[in-house]
Amino acid sequence: MTSFRFAVNVTPKPGILDPQGRAVQGSLGHLGISGVSAVRVGRRVELTVDAADGPAARDVVDQLARELLSNPLIETYDLEPIGAASSAIGVAVQEG
Amino acid sequence: MTSFRFAVNVTPKPGILDPQGRAVQGSLGHLGISGVSAVRVGRRVELTVDAADGPAARDVVDQLARELLSNPLIETYDLEPIGAASSAIGVAVQEG
Repeated sequence: MTSFRFAVNVTPKPGILDPQGRAVQGSLGHLGISGVSAVRVGRRVELTVDAADGPAARDVVDQLARELLSNPLIETYDLEPIGAASSAIGVAVQEG
Repeated sequence: MTSFRFAVNVTPKPGILDPQGRAVQGSLGHLGISGVSAVRVGRRVELTVDAADGPAARDVVDQLARELLSNPLIETYDLEPIGAASSAIGVAVQEG
């Protein structure tokens, strides 16, 4: 088994109302920031999965993202391998 | 002005209690998923910023992340240029 670190990025689907994004956009004026648009607020879940190989690890994360981390009616997700964050894990030896 | 699309990934600092991550981890058994650990739940904010060049755009996003999108006591953030999501914006012509 090897350890893999992934991030699951969950974002509101295009066209779906995003009240948090609206709130951020509404606060920009108070900060004196201009030129920012199309703000969408979603979730980012980082996790470590032990699996035989990369594709098997991705399958587990995909199931998790689909069944637990996202609402498929209003959200989309993508999976992102994050090697950098798992450098401490990356040295894990294959235990075979 | 050119348009740049960024994501701001906000995650709980190491050592900070993460109740959402705990909740996800507690649900894994019900889904029949094993081998998943170190779950951390954060936010992902995607936005478009109009600026003269890349570094200027990053400065705006960094200010926004620092002052509005994250709580520096308990969270860290990183900025991620997301070219793929901005392909439609990428063709924007310099207006001078």
